[in-house]
Amino acid sequence: MKRTLAAFSLIALALPVAAADPAVPYPEGYRDWYHVKSMVIEEGHPLFAAFGGIHHLYANAAAVAGYKAGSFPDGAVIVFDLLEATRSGNALTEGARKVVGVMHRDASKFAATGGWGFEGFAGGDRTQRVVGDDAVDACFACHAPQKDQDYVFSALRD
Amino acid sequence: MKRTLAAFSLIALALPVAAADPAVPYPEGYRDWYHVKSMVIEEGHPLFAAFGGIHHLYANAAAVAGYKAGSFPDGAVIVFDLLEATRSGNALTEGARKVVGVMHRDASKFAATGGWGFEGFAGGDRTQRVVGDDAVDACFACHAPQKDQDYVFSALRD
Repeated sequence: MKRTLAAFSLIALALPVAAADPAVPYPEGYRDWYHVKSMVIEEGHPLFAAFGGIHHLYANAAAVAGYKAGSFPDGAVIVFDLLEATRSGNALTEGARKVVGVMHRDASKFAATGGWGFEGFAGGDRTQRVVGDDAVDACFACHAPQKDQDYVFSALRD
Repeated sequence: MKRTLAAFSLIALALPVAAADPAVPYPEGYRDWYHVKSMVIEEGHPLFAAFGGIHHLYANAAAVAGYKAGSFPDGAVIVFDLLEATRSGNALTEGARKVVGVMHRDASKFAATGGWGFEGFAGGDRTQRVVGDDAVDACFACHAPQKDQDYVFSALRD
């Protein structure tokens, strides 16, 4: 029994303190998720400075269920994958990744921002967090009016 | 024994004659497949008449393996999903589906066109085939120079 307890303590010490960590995790494997929709934001658009380029939205299985139900369960994750859009020869092609934006549902952990954790990873680099503690001003201020859609702008299409 | 043979004959009669059918099947469930990449083709581009709009490429698991290997196994399917691109307020948004283009790998069945069957479904309607027997002129003429990439134009990106 003593040995078992000692082993358990060692394991417990080695575990990250996930429950006390408010950070939104990097969305591992999101490129394999469901492609919801895409859009191009061009110069002159009010969101160009923040979101200029071509973006794709990806949803994990829980988020796909959430779109269908009209409210999202804990564990739902939506990714806003923003790439440069390069215009050449009357075509727009995808360039470098600008940011991986994330909405991560955890109703109790992120209660202050509608139950969603918000984060952005500059260039898709999981170490370059651009939102951090600023989610209320940097993200939720714009998402709050979408309350009837559980704070989400996008919707499924065929 | 007689009864078994009789039963077999009935089953055989009820089966579609898949082996003798050159038609490329509609790619059921392709919206759940891997999103490879996207592009916008605008007015003035030489392919605008055929492919103007925003298109997304989707690959089934065999096609994803094919992209990685540089050659595609039988059963690999790539979908070219073309939607209207609507410009408004300095943004491009997705509109109605124009065509679901398909490349379906079956090296022996489609030997005349590089081992790929080509089809297009107008408006995404599985009954509206726009290529049919015309794959050599309508599709393969442009794909043939891509022989070193197994006749595929697109490539995986991050």
